[in-house]
Amino acid sequence: MAKDKPTKLKARMPRGLADRGPAELGSTRAMLETIRKVYELYGFEALETPFIEYTDALGKFLPDQDRPNEGVFSFQDDDEQWLSLRYDLTAPLARHVAENFDRLAKPFRSYRAGWVFRNEKPGPGRFRQFMQFDADTVGAPTVAADAEICMMAADTLEALGIARGDYVIKVNNRKVLDGVLEAIGLGGEDNAGRRLTVLRAIDKFDKVGIEGVRDLLGEGRWENPAAKSGDFTKGAGLDAAQASVVLSLLDKQAAYEKPANETYAAGLAELAEIDALVKAAGYEGRVKIDPSVVRGLEYYTGPVFEAELTFEVKDEKGRPVRFGSVGGGGRYDGLVGRFRSEPVPATGFSIGVSRLASALSYLKTADAAPEYGPVVVVVMDRDQTAHYMGLVATLRSAGIRAEMYLGNPKNLGNQFKYADRRNAPCVVIQGSDERANGQVQIKDLIEGAKAAAAITDNAEWRSSRPAQFACDEAELVAKVRELLDHHGVPHGAALG
Amino acid sequence: MAKDKPTKLKARMPRGLADRGPAELGSTRAMLETIRKVYELYGFEALETPFIEYTDALGKFLPDQDRPNEGVFSFQDDDEQWLSLRYDLTAPLARHVAENFDRLAKPFRSYRAGWVFRNEKPGPGRFRQFMQFDADTVGAPTVAADAEICMMAADTLEALGIARGDYVIKVNNRKVLDGVLEAIGLGGEDNAGRRLTVLRAIDKFDKVGIEGVRDLLGEGRWENPAAKSGDFTKGAGLDAAQASVVLSLLDKQAAYEKPANETYAAGLAELAEIDALVKAAGYEGRVKIDPSVVRGLEYYTGPVFEAELTFEVKDEKGRPVRFGSVGGGGRYDGLVGRFRSEPVPATGFSIGVSRLASALSYLKTADAAPEYGPVVVVVMDRDQTAHYMGLVATLRSAGIRAEMYLGNPKNLGNQFKYADRRNAPCVVIQGSDERANGQVQIKDLIEGAKAAAAITDNAEWRSSRPAQFACDEAELVAKVRELLDHHGVPHGAALG
Repeated sequence: MAKDKPTKLKARMPRGLADRGPAELGSTRAMLETIRKVYELYGFEALETPFIEYTDALGKFLPDQDRPNEGVFSFQDDDEQWLSLRYDLTAPLARHVAENFDRLAKPFRSYRAGWVFRNEKPGPGRFRQFMQFDADTVGAPTVAADAEICMMAADTLEALGIARGDYVIKVNNRKVLDGVLEAIGLGGEDNAGRRLTVLRAIDKFDKVGIEGVRDLLGEGRWENPAAKSGDFTKGAGLDAAQASVVLSLLDKQAAYEKPANETYAAGLAELAEIDALVKAAGYEGRVKIDPSVVRGLEYYTGPVFEAELTFEVKDEKGRPVRFGSVGGGGRYDGLVGRFRSEPVPATGFSIGVSRLASALSYLKTADAAPEYGPVVVVVMDRDQTAHYMGLVATLRSAGIRAEMYLGNPKNLGNQFKYADRRNAPCVVIQGSDERANGQVQIKDLIEGAKAAAAITDNAEWRSSRPAQFACDEAELVAKVRELLDHHGVPHGAALG
Repeated sequence: MAKDKPTKLKARMPRGLADRGPAELGSTRAMLETIRKVYELYGFEALETPFIEYTDALGKFLPDQDRPNEGVFSFQDDDEQWLSLRYDLTAPLARHVAENFDRLAKPFRSYRAGWVFRNEKPGPGRFRQFMQFDADTVGAPTVAADAEICMMAADTLEALGIARGDYVIKVNNRKVLDGVLEAIGLGGEDNAGRRLTVLRAIDKFDKVGIEGVRDLLGEGRWENPAAKSGDFTKGAGLDAAQASVVLSLLDKQAAYEKPANETYAAGLAELAEIDALVKAAGYEGRVKIDPSVVRGLEYYTGPVFEAELTFEVKDEKGRPVRFGSVGGGGRYDGLVGRFRSEPVPATGFSIGVSRLASALSYLKTADAAPEYGPVVVVVMDRDQTAHYMGLVATLRSAGIRAEMYLGNPKNLGNQFKYADRRNAPCVVIQGSDERANGQVQIKDLIEGAKAAAAITDNAEWRSSRPAQFACDEAELVAKVRELLDHHGVPHGAALG
């Protein structure tokens, strides 16, 4: 049998995952740093929990979690216990607090930034690995903690450069929703599943409108209601009277009898208290009570929040895009209590880092400067490698990003192509002639690019500063620094 | 049947995982920032790959990987393809480069920091989730790239505060080892397994000494050789003559005939070239050729590196501790080639972030200042919540970390206990009397702690600055700032 060329493995990534390059990582890093500073100013402290937890410790509180084993990535440990990748940063926090309860100062105020994982069908902008940045106050029974965290969310968005008026923090209360559900006969353990279906229907208000919600509260809804085609979502099966009570939540004009139960009254009172605190602190219009906010997660027990960006931008095709929700949270008084006998009230807020970063990138495209790469020292004579590395070391010790070309140096053209692709501000060249004279050539690639683009209004600069010039080796740092400063390319100081 | 109290879930973490608090996260963040700056100065650019990859794309290159399905956390996707959590940052890089080959400037120089996962038996200091910080040059055929990355490793350790002389970057070459193995008849595909056993034996030189390695090259070694007890590690089964050739690598005094094959000669020549480049750049003594370095991973094909800390510190019991390896790497010319027809030479270095952080924490214990928490505003009258939140907002807008007590305010003692446990520098108090006069009380907890510790040499300060004093509400920021400055507690400027 003839020996075939072995089949090569295909380089590919699983769906819903992504690699990230320097531009995205740089802006995300800056963003995380800003969020961190606001959270620390509020008195929250850093915490990190591991990516892997016992499946039962995480619980199953995912939104749209109809199928019990979906939504999370799970695998068995060698002792056959089930482990899962965390799907949010709240369930692991509850485990952490319960495990370290006596050691922790309470209220326990922590912030946590990190990747979470959802084993779901990926889609555009919908990843199976994404980053959240959370802050939570555990052991805080009053809505002052909820009001504070909503105001912090507003401060955070403003610190990130989102103007007042371009965002809103919406607040609702699960008790209000639960009171309504109780009033229409959906109270009690037995109706938990149907309650969730109703909540999900309300949650879709922004997407499907009032008639869509009505369908979802009744028999169900077709993806394309007019044609009765596409996916069919089964509804909650409410009758028309029940549905109209629920719908009255979303329509302020609708006349309806307020539920007379305590849950509903308690929810309204809490919302009024939050509203008063928010107004007293000068956050009126930034933090707003809004009855359409639901939040999908099952574990919320009181106030729920949603941070929404309200400004519109144009996408690549010029169509208006609204970002919508970039974070949310709420009160989850029962989550720590799963592990402990005493009740542990808690509230928190989570920023969807990737979504928010994408929104911020739209705001910043206007003033984005090109990122320059390192200064590249080309290899003219391979036996001079040590000397070229010395030139690079001199630049680096002056705080200037620099590198020697490390590919195969035979083809000089490839070396210049490399410098171009790295967006190097300049190239340093030393052939035998220059070496004999103790000199180097510096080729200004930014100037060169301008010349290539036939820009004529910098004629004066070009006449005095050609795109390539020679200087003494001893002047290398000074000349490169001058060139970088001239073009406004940032560079560090000497490392010391 | 009587209704029992429901059994509570036990809050627990899977073995080999850890939560991390503010002190550890703060020092790690500073450390990562320093490493990043050095790597960027060298011209490397940020890259992040996802935590999950196709299992076959990662390959199985783990050290001590005798059992094919161990070492990594794996699970099936919904299309039944196997996925794994990444076990290092090199295999995902190879996938990334192969997948984006035409788009990338080559050599492709990237750095990547992130968590990796090993499904191994955890132990003291041995975690199943740990952080690495890698830099790699892909598409670099010459050992100049290897020499550069070793020098960068040295620069990185010094930038982190490790003194010259307290570390060494050791360099060896797999070709030297392979040449020796070829010379004793262990060349060829069929002997791949035995070669790995020999390499692992050499790798244990630091731990078990020359006699231990001799046992591991022969029949095997008992954990306690004298008593022939403990675990038994099966050896490579070399005869005495073969073993002595291998052992001569580790013992410079030993007389032996140098292998006459090309692999060995090429390896030696590369080491000589690296040595020359390192010396020319002034890194002599910091980057050293050392024949005992092996590196466990199977994918290395040329130079291999190991960064070792050589200083000793005392552990809690006063015993000397040597940190040993805090990173390593090497050349892996075949790894990208698994996906592509052309050869893609590459070399890289990986820092074990958690290990290095632990070493640095030993160096810094002497000058570690206590970390202070936020200023705490206590809640004297619950109906004044909005006003207390206003005091907090005033402090925060001046850049001072502050918070209102958010636990149940009924017990004032708990509020002060909380401020103590958060290590608050001071507490702000406003009861009805102070409020009537437009004043607040500021209680200096740092001064109070000093008084409690009966320190007498600050009598003068105490007489002029009691541990509690009143001031006008309008002076709150100025007085708190004065207090923080007096105690040297850092605080930010106004957020703007």
